[in-house]
This record gives sequence, C-alpha cells and structure tokens, in this order.
Amino acid sequence: MVHVGIVGATGYGGSELFRLLHNHPHVGDVSLYSSSQAGEPYSSFMPQVSGWFQEELRPIEEAQMKKDLDVLFLATPAGVSKDLTPSFLNSGVKVIDLSGDLRLKKTEDYEKWYKKESASEELLTEAVYGLVETNRKNIEASEIVANPGCYPTAVLLGTAPLAHREGWNGDSLIIDAKSGISGAGKTPSDKTIYANTEENFRIYKVNEHQHIPEIEQQLEWWGGETSPITFSPHLVPMTRGIMATMYVQGDENVSAQEWLKIYRDFYENSPFVRIREEFPSTKDVYASNFCDIHLTVDERTGRLTIVSVIDNLLKGASGQAVQNMNLMLGFEETEGLKLLPLYP
Amino acid sequence: MVHVGIVGATGYGGSELFRLLHNHPHVGDVSLYSSSQAGEPYSSFMPQVSGWFQEELRPIEEAQMKKDLDVLFLATPAGVSKDLTPSFLNSGVKVIDLSGDLRLKKTEDYEKWYKKESASEELLTEAVYGLVETNRKNIEASEIVANPGCYPTAVLLGTAPLAHREGWNGDSLIIDAKSGISGAGKTPSDKTIYANTEENFRIYKVNEHQHIPEIEQQLEWWGGETSPITFSPHLVPMTRGIMATMYVQGDENVSAQEWLKIYRDFYENSPFVRIREEFPSTKDVYASNFCDIHLTVDERTGRLTIVSVIDNLLKGASGQAVQNMNLMLGFEETEGLKLLPLYP
Amino acid sequence: MVHVGIVGATGYGGSELFRLLHNHPHVGDVSLYSSSQAGEPYSSFMPQVSGWFQEELRPIEEAQMKKDLDVLFLATPAGVSKDLTPSFLNSGVKVIDLSGDLRLKKTEDYEKWYKKESASEELLTEAVYGLVETNRKNIEASEIVANPGCYPTAVLLGTAPLAHREGWNGDSLIIDAKSGISGAGKTPSDKTIYANTEENFRIYKVNEHQHIPEIEQQLEWWGGETSPITFSPHLVPMTRGIMATMYVQGDENVSAQEWLKIYRDFYENSPFVRIREEFPSTKDVYASNFCDIHLTVDERTGRLTIVSVIDNLLKGASGQAVQNMNLMLGFEETEGLKLLPLYP
Amino acid sequence: MVHVGIVGATGYGGSELFRLLHNHPHVGDVSLYSSSQAGEPYSSFMPQVSGWFQEELRPIEEAQMKKDLDVLFLATPAGVSKDLTPSFLNSGVKVIDLSGDLRLKKTEDYEKWYKKESASEELLTEAVYGLVETNRKNIEASEIVANPGCYPTAVLLGTAPLAHREGWNGDSLIIDAKSGISGAGKTPSDKTIYANTEENFRIYKVNEHQHIPEIEQQLEWWGGETSPITFSPHLVPMTRGIMATMYVQGDENVSAQEWLKIYRDFYENSPFVRIREEFPSTKDVYASNFCDIHLTVDERTGRLTIVSVIDNLLKGASGQAVQNMNLMLGFEETEGLKLLPLYP
Repeated sequence: MVHVGIVGATGYGGSELFRLLHNHPHVGDVSLYSSSQAGEPYSSFMPQVSGWFQEELRPIEEAQMKKDLDVLFLATPAGVSKDLTPSFLNSGVKVIDLSGDLRLKKTEDYEKWYKKESASEELLTEAVYGLVETNRKNIEASEIVANPGCYPTAVLLGTAPLAHREGWNGDSLIIDAKSGISGAGKTPSDKTIYANTEENFRIYKVNEHQHIPEIEQQLEWWGGETSPITFSPHLVPMTRGIMATMYVQGDENVSAQEWLKIYRDFYENSPFVRIREEFPSTKDVYASNFCDIHLTVDERTGRLTIVSVIDNLLKGASGQAVQNMNLMLGFEETEGLKLLPLYP
Repeated sequence: MVHVGIVGATGYGGSELFRLLHNHPHVGDVSLYSSSQAGEPYSSFMPQVSGWFQEELRPIEEAQMKKDLDVLFLATPAGVSKDLTPSFLNSGVKVIDLSGDLRLKKTEDYEKWYKKESASEELLTEAVYGLVETNRKNIEASEIVANPGCYPTAVLLGTAPLAHREGWNGDSLIIDAKSGISGAGKTPSDKTIYANTEENFRIYKVNEHQHIPEIEQQLEWWGGETSPITFSPHLVPMTRGIMATMYVQGDENVSAQEWLKIYRDFYENSPFVRIREEFPSTKDVYASNFCDIHLTVDERTGRLTIVSVIDNLLKGASGQAVQNMNLMLGFEETEGLKLLPLYP
Repeated sequence: MVHVGIVGATGYGGSELFRLLHNHPHVGDVSLYSSSQAGEPYSSFMPQVSGWFQEELRPIEEAQMKKDLDVLFLATPAGVSKDLTPSFLNSGVKVIDLSGDLRLKKTEDYEKWYKKESASEELLTEAVYGLVETNRKNIEASEIVANPGCYPTAVLLGTAPLAHREGWNGDSLIIDAKSGISGAGKTPSDKTIYANTEENFRIYKVNEHQHIPEIEQQLEWWGGETSPITFSPHLVPMTRGIMATMYVQGDENVSAQEWLKIYRDFYENSPFVRIREEFPSTKDVYASNFCDIHLTVDERTGRLTIVSVIDNLLKGASGQAVQNMNLMLGFEETEGLKLLPLYP
Repeated sequence: MVHVGIVGATGYGGSELFRLLHNHPHVGDVSLYSSSQAGEPYSSFMPQVSGWFQEELRPIEEAQMKKDLDVLFLATPAGVSKDLTPSFLNSGVKVIDLSGDLRLKKTEDYEKWYKKESASEELLTEAVYGLVETNRKNIEASEIVANPGCYPTAVLLGTAPLAHREGWNGDSLIIDAKSGISGAGKTPSDKTIYANTEENFRIYKVNEHQHIPEIEQQLEWWGGETSPITFSPHLVPMTRGIMATMYVQGDENVSAQEWLKIYRDFYENSPFVRIREEFPSTKDVYASNFCDIHLTVDERTGRLTIVSVIDNLLKGASGQAVQNMNLMLGFEETEGLKLLPLYP
C-alpha cells in the first residue's frame, strides 16, 4: 500500500482525486495539504466526506512530506508547481502535476499564454507529458509527470491516430470545444454563478485559450511541423463534460469505416478509449475515465468531423492523474478507475 | 385591428406565437385551430393562459376561416402546410408558414432532405422566403411567406454581409451549431426527456440536417455558385437559444474591426440585429426577437470566427413570423416585439 | 407619460423592473441611478439592452431627481431606503421601495430580524404595505409603498381568504417554501455558483428568515392575535419561481370545493390571482405577474394543503411594484403587465 | 464469488444496480434478463457500458436462472414481482425485489393504493422489509427482501429514532418531500420531458402517493397505533436526490442537541446514516449510499423540523438493495458501496 498526498484537495480536480484515491485498492493513506487552510478538517469544506474522513488539512512541510509520501499530486493553480516541485526532485517522491506549469516545453510559450514566469528548463526537461495512451513507456520511467489539460486530452486523443499517419497535414484543424462549467474552477464569479450559466450557452477566449500551445506542441511532436489550429472553447450549462467537435480536411482515399478501423487499431490496448459506432454524448462518459470517439466523412465536402468526449474532471484531470500513478508505480492501468459512467 | 388565426398553437412555436399575438397592439382576435383537438379549451393544454384566454380550439373549416381571418399562421409539422395553404391562395387571407414546407424552391431538395412529397411548384413560386432583414421588399408584397428555419436564421444573418461581398467564396464555411432542446419539439421521446438532456451535450444529424439545403439555397441566391457547407447541430442542456459558431477563411486585407463596420452598415436599418462589441451569449437574446452577432479574425490562421445567437422560438420562429406579419400588413416592423430579453 | 427612476437597476429586481417600465404604455423616460457605478452605460452591465437603451447610470442627486421624477423605485439592499426615502417625503415624488426597510411596522422587529438599524417610526407610519390584492384603497392614497417580499407575497395571497374568515386560527400554519436561486441575489458566492446549485436541493435559514415577521405582521392585522408560524425556505436548482406549500388544520365543515369557492370569491376582482382547478407549477406563472393557487383537504387528517406559486422577480418584486405604481397613479392595474407566462 | 441476476436492468434503478454489482468485490458474473428485449446487447440501451460489458439480455427462463444464480434482483414495474417471485421460493436463489409488490403486508392496502391485484399473503409473509438500519437481523435470515421505496427510506430513517421513543405520538407528522425527476422512471411523457422539468417546480399526488401506506405501516410497527400522515411529494428540476422535510410537534423537555444525541446513538453502528451538524443538501449524498440527517427545534412553536436526504437511485433503490444482498450473504455491509458522493 502506498501513501499519497494531494496539495489543493479543496478544488474540483483535487477533491475528485481524493474521491478516487480514497477507494484505490493499492493506496493506504491519503494526506491532504494546504498552505492557507492547514488545521481545518477537510470535511468542513467537503460535506460529502463527513463521517468517513476525519482528517485535517496539513501544512506544506516539505521535509515531512518527503518522509511520508510515495506520490504527491499537485492540484494547484498555475504558478505553484514550478516553485514546489523542485524540492521533490530526486527525493524518491514521485510528483504528478495537474496544473499547466510543466506541460509546455518552451519557456516562452508558457510566458506568452499563461502570462507568468515559467518553470526552469531543467524541470521542464524532467517532466514527462502524461497523455497516457500515447506515452506509456516514458511515463513508466518518469519521476515527474505533467498531467495534460482537459481540452488537450479530448482533442489529442481524438486526433492522435490521424496525426500519426504518414503525410498528415494539420493545417486545417478547427476545434470547436464545449465544456461544463466545472472547468472554470470553484471560485465564485459572474462567470460561474447559476443565473449566468443556466439557460445560457457562451463562447470565450476564442483563439486565446492557454490550451492552444499545449495541443500544438503535441501535434508537432507527432507530425513534424504543423500549422496553427483554430480553437473556440464554449461553456455549456452543465457541471461536467467536454465535447470536442473537430473539423479537418480528409484524405479522399480513406472512408469513414476505414478511419474507424485505423482508430480502433491505434487504441487496441487502451481500455479507456472507446471508438464508438455512433457519435457519443458527454453523458456516455460522465463520472468515468473514458474517452469516447466517433467520426464521419462528409461526402459532399470531403471533410472529417471527429467528436471526442471526456469527463473533464476525470479523464481530463484526476482520472488521468491516477492512471499516470498506476503506470509510474507498476500497477494495472485501470486500478481504482473501473467504475462505469453514472447514469442517469 | 386584425383577426389572426393559428393552426398548431399547442406546439412550442405555436404557443409562443399566441403569446406574442395576444398582446400585439394591432391584433384583435386570435383564433386557434386544430384538427385533432377541436372543442377543447386551449387552457387545458396551456395552464399559462388560465383565466385570461377562455376560448376553445376550433375545427379547421376553411370556408369559415376565409371569412374570419386576415392572417393565418401555420405552426404545423412538415407535410401539413403543402396541403392546407393552397386553399387560401387568392382568398385574401395572408399565410405565414412556420414549417419547412415552402422554403426549398427545388422540389427534389425537399424530397431528398425531408423524405416527404413536396408542395407544388406553383405554391413554392408564390411563397416568399421570410428572412426579414434581407428580403423586406418581397415580403411586403407577398401573400404567402415561408418563415425561415431556426438554424438558417442564425446562420444566414451571421453570414449575409459576408455573402453579399464581391468575390465571396463560400467553399470553406463550417457551421458548428448549438440549440436548446425546444428545437426538438414537444413530443416526449428518449431524446427530449430530462434525464437524457440535463448534464448532457449531444451532437446529432451531422451533415444530414434538413436545414442544410435551406442555408445553401440562400447562400446561392446571394453569392452565385457556392460549395456545400459543413453543418453539425448539437443539443445543449437548456430549453431555448441557438448559437451558431461559424468558421470561414477570411480576406487578408480586411481586419476584424473592418468586418464589424461592414456588418454594422449592412444592418443599419435592422433594429433586431445587433452587431456586438464582444461575443454574445444565448441569454443576451433570451425570450426576445434579437439576433446578436460578433466576429473575430485569428491572425495566426487568417480565419474568421463568426458567432450569431438567437432565441430559436422567437427570431428563429414565432418572433420572425410576427415580424413578417408586420411587414405584410404595413405595420411598424417592431410592433408586438419590443420586449427586451428576459434576465436572469 | 410619466418619468420614473430606479435606484439599483443592475440587480435582479431592478433590471426586471427596467424591462417592464421600458415597455409600459404610460411611462416615458426611465432614468437609472447608482451611487457606485454612475457614468457607466447601463448596457455594459446588461448586454440584454444593447442597442436599445444607450443611457448611462446617473449619480444619486436628490435635488435633480425631485425635479425630474414622478415615481422613484428603490431596488436596493437593506439599509439604503431608510436613509434615502425621507428626502422624498412631501416632494411630490412617489416612492416604491422593493427592499425590506419599510415593511415591518415595529422597529424592534426590523432590528431583530435584519440585524440593522430600523427606519424612523414616522417613515414606517407613512409607508403603506403594497400587497395589492388586499390593500388597494390605501395604496391608491399613498405616497410611499413598501413593496412586499417575495415569500410573503406567495404566502399571504395563499392564506388571505382563510385569514379573513371569522374564527380563523393561525396557530398551526406550517410553510414549506421553495425558491429559485435568483432570490439570493446576484452577488457571486459559494451559495450561488452553478456547481453548488445544479443537481442540488438545499434548505436554509430554517425558522430564521427575515420574511417571517413580515408574514406574521400581516396575519395579525387580518386575524387578531396569531401564533408564530413555522417557515422553512429551500433553494431549488432553477433561476426563477417560488412555490409555497402550506399546511393548516382545516375546518371540518368546509370541503375543498367550498374552500375553492371562498378563494374565487375573495379574488373575484383580482386579475393576477388565479384560483386553479389543479395544483399549479412554478412554470405556469414564469416571467409573469400571476399568482396561481390551489388547495385540497385531506379527508384522512382534516388538514388543508394550500399551494401558491409566483415568479419571485415579478409578482414577488418588480411586477408587484409596477402594479403598485399603476394604482398610485390611477392607471389600469394591469398596464404594462399583460404578457402571459413564458413557455416552455 | 457469487453469480447475480437482474430483471429490469434497462430502467434507472436496474442500470444503477448493474453499475454497482459490476464492481462489487464479491460478485463474479452479472446476468441481465428481459422478457421483451432478450437477445439484444445491453450496451445498445446503455452506451455507458460500451466496450466493457458485451453481453446480451437473456430471456427469463426460470429453470435456467435457478441453476445459474445465487441472487436475483427484480427492478421491475409494479405487478411483475408478485408473479415472478413465487417460482424462486425455496429454490436457493435469494430474491431482492425493488418494486412495491412485496412491501405492504395487507393485501387491501396494496390494492387500494396500487390499484392492482396484490401478491399472495404467503409471499407477503415471507418477504422481509429491507430497511437495513432498523431490520438487520431479519434481513440476514431472509430469502426474500422487499427493498423499501425511495421516499419511505428517507422518511423512515429520518423518523426512526423518534418513533422508537416511549410515548411517541405520530399524529402530527407532516412530510413535505422533494425528488429529482429520475424517480418518475425513464418512460418519456409530458411529465418527464426537459422543457416541462427545467425551471419548473411541481407538486403531485398530494396525499395520494402509494408510498404513504408503506410509511404508515412501518411507523405502526414501531410505535403502536399511529394516525395518518400528511404527505406532499414534489418534483425538483434535477435528476437525482430526495429531501424529506418533516414537521412534528416536539417534546418540550428535549432540546435540539439532545435530539441529535438520540439520533447519533440510534445510528451508531450504521455507517451509511450520518447525523450532520448542519442541514444537509441533496448533493452531499449524490451518487452514494448515504442518508444524511439533521434537525432543529423551533423555540417559538416547539416544532421539530427534521431533514433527511438520500440519492433516490442508491440508498433509495439500488444501493440499499446491494446493502441487503451484503447482509443476506454475510458480506461486510459496506462492500461495493464505499465510493464517496460525487462532487461537484
């Protein structure tokens, strides 16, 4: 049994992580850390755990954490991990960072899109990009994993088989992405209140979202040089779920059925990616670690329409983080993640 | 004061039409007709009107209707109008058809996309396409108006200024459209029940929606030959509202600010189209007849992203129908439609 | 045409008031006032009015307001009206206060339940309680109206015919009330964010809500001495609407049908109160000024179950305020309030 | 490892049961049965299980089922279990019936409230009422369990400590209950469609709900003679969750704190019942098997207000059914039910 820690367990990603780890068959203790709320019982923030988890949030004391922990998860805002992670380098504690701090390998990309100081190049080199289905070997060998963003997970799993093809040309990729409001975090604001969310469909950060360089970086790694993408995120009046609807010029020699076969082969050994026979809805993966994908070719335009859905808080955050932990520690990839989607 | 009739007032479009006409300053009586429910009080289907509207649904008796009515609205399923409208030709009763029956001018288009027998060519020739902002002269002179579909209204108002430009080339138009569930009508089904709609974001009829030929027909009228569009409708967990997010290759000599000026000029005399300074949300037009539009140019890709929002039941159906009536009868275009959007 | 002003037009009650007054047939100008946001265009807070209302928020300058206005509406937080209203006494400007400041006639009640300093006794004496259906004469003659709270409106209209009966005994009244989240106001908080509201049903301020003394005061006026009520407010995952489910020991000689007749007679001349033949839902009155009521007698227990529904922002706030204005100025009671409930 | 079967796995209760049993540590095979849909893959009804559960629905062949199964769950409409259960009597297959067929011990009660023919008295005698926390011994020894209804579970757990007290007098119990729409089942109807549910709060079956005799029967078993209850169920615009707000005249010698202590003692060995320190919301138990309870005493009226919340599909149906199975088979009561509530 391993002992794991979470910094940031009162946020949406962090509390979901706690929920998963609390029931993980190979996890013993789960310790929660907070700089500002240390000493308060976790249940005072999360009535959901009342009676079943009595512990307090602990202060962030690195020496003690290194003694206690096997794995440390950081579910923290941008800027925290770059300062906290270095002290765990070579400490024997594996770090899985759910923030965006360690994802972009070029410091200038981070500084441009996040408008903050980047982590050091050394740290960025050390951190492995944790898109599990396309990077298992590196993750297994890593000490630090940069857990992918929610939109990039949906987009990249939806395009990976395409992007790995000889002659792929990413220059016409248009991504129309839709997310539940939990993606905006738990801080109350005009954006997140009920009356502005319910019966409202919104678009935001058109071509300005910080997940754009993360997607482009991975496409470039796969496919050589790639042109910029078009990316429009939208907010759906719901709590969880992402759908990425993607448009790309197809290859006139490949039919929809052939594409589906290419996708099935690509994900043959990936239990959480399901190539579906019809377009999936977000509720098909609600509260689970699945990514469901389907596509079609429009004979009139030759365009591919690819749809990829995930639960942004699971496969798009905490679920994939647990999947990464499983690989890093040599556990079965699906451990602690077997629950089927919740319905209705 | 005019006397108006509605066939299909128990559906969503029809009841909304009743709500508007009931308060229209130039409308006296509103009579409601039904083939299957004649004799029952309207309030037994619509508790909303209890106490304020006591009348029963009347049978569809054409001779009587011709005697009584100045205007007849058809808020009926596909296939009804093509049979009912001919008897009102040259009767002095103006007909406004909210169904799709009279929109497509080529009978083969209707038969292909609606999978039903088309109206006669004579009727199709007579019926004027009621996209008010771009067709006022013809509507004013018409006896029969084919009221546009909800998606086509959002899409065509969002692209009209572009499509009217010299050298417009429609071949790269991609439309990612999102609609509230009321667009699916009021018949209970697996698609429309709450548990399958709430916390669920769905895509449907990809490149197969019957509004595709309606959009393409109008683009062709405006711009000469046009290539097929890509059209993906989605269902949002909300009751009302449509957002169309549209992607099109821009013109490198025209900036976003210049495009906005072109749009503002185009709609200068259209009180219900508002060219906004930021991207609109569907709730900005909720329960109103507005169409709000904004666009941006991505400098990295040169693409235009255009967003157009409407209330599908108002500007996308009953509101536009009243606007058409106003023009046909020589009333002020905004009569009966002045209420601002409901918020929150 | 009268000139009206609103202080607090960026809140939910105030913006709804603006929406109604903007279309009121006897209202000319509507001026909006703000202490903190003066100088900013109203449309920057309310995209809904874009293009149709270009004016800025004005500073609160009492001398100028007295010159300009016929009626002033205060849609302000507790504590503002008690300071602002006195300067309009005897100024010729009629004041309608939507806050709780002038409702409770005993200063100690206000101080106990609102935990703030009360308005002066003089002002409290001057202010007429604006529950229209039971107080028309006094309202018509008044210069200052205290517009009732949302819960009291639903509860008092639902119990008035009962409380006016000889021998009424209020001591067993239990009120289980449910409100949409707009009742909590527009300030972002843990309580009002989407993720804590959607798929969540909450109870709050059990027997501690500041509307309790307002209800009890009116019951006392009607019925002589009355025992304390039990009042449990709940928050429903929706934006608008209140349902009050009320339990009271019945009179064994009066059947449900007889009660309904008593209610119908009581509200014979009240166009906005509808005694329904089945239990109403909140959506039956959505976005309208109606109060729908039904009741039943349980033969097994002899108890009456009375249900009353309103739109909390209309009959429970701005709609009733306009109704009060209509009476104070001698207009038809329904002017500006004729729109039927929005559906779906 | 045991082999379990479910009849009715395409309904809401049945599919939730499948989800739980699929991950239960002591359950091997789960076989699904259907009379009308046998032969079709389960995943064609439940896209959620795609790829992870490939089996078809099996026909209801009792001989084969008796050979294969250790436990059979019936998640069927009223009227099915009374016909199906008898053939499993003394077969060695334990039956857990989630329908209402075996709950009411007096056949005339069933016939009055369900308006159908009752099960035989023999069967009714055999079936043990499965309200786990108050009936463990009998459940452990039983072959057939009648799994309690959703409302009765919330109400009875919320009143059990009270009803077990010497001198309890149930005659003033008023239950104002609120349920998510999944309680109405998955059949599409005017009641369950989105547009009639969202932004709508409804009351139904006032004093006529078939759960009334189930509650009264248990109260009678606990407390001797009991007067009829008042019961008003409401529909909340959400999918899951029940809150029962209950009003009862208190005992003037017992304070709220003392009541809470009495409740805590009563449920000391019940891990799924949590006596909270503040009023719970339905989301505190969402997607879990918990029942959270809090109460207060109003000093002004002496009344107790008790609030009890559950997830209607878990503690109110499938979760409690698994809990019953655990007891019947000698497993740990919490096996397969340890996942904490989902948030947000």
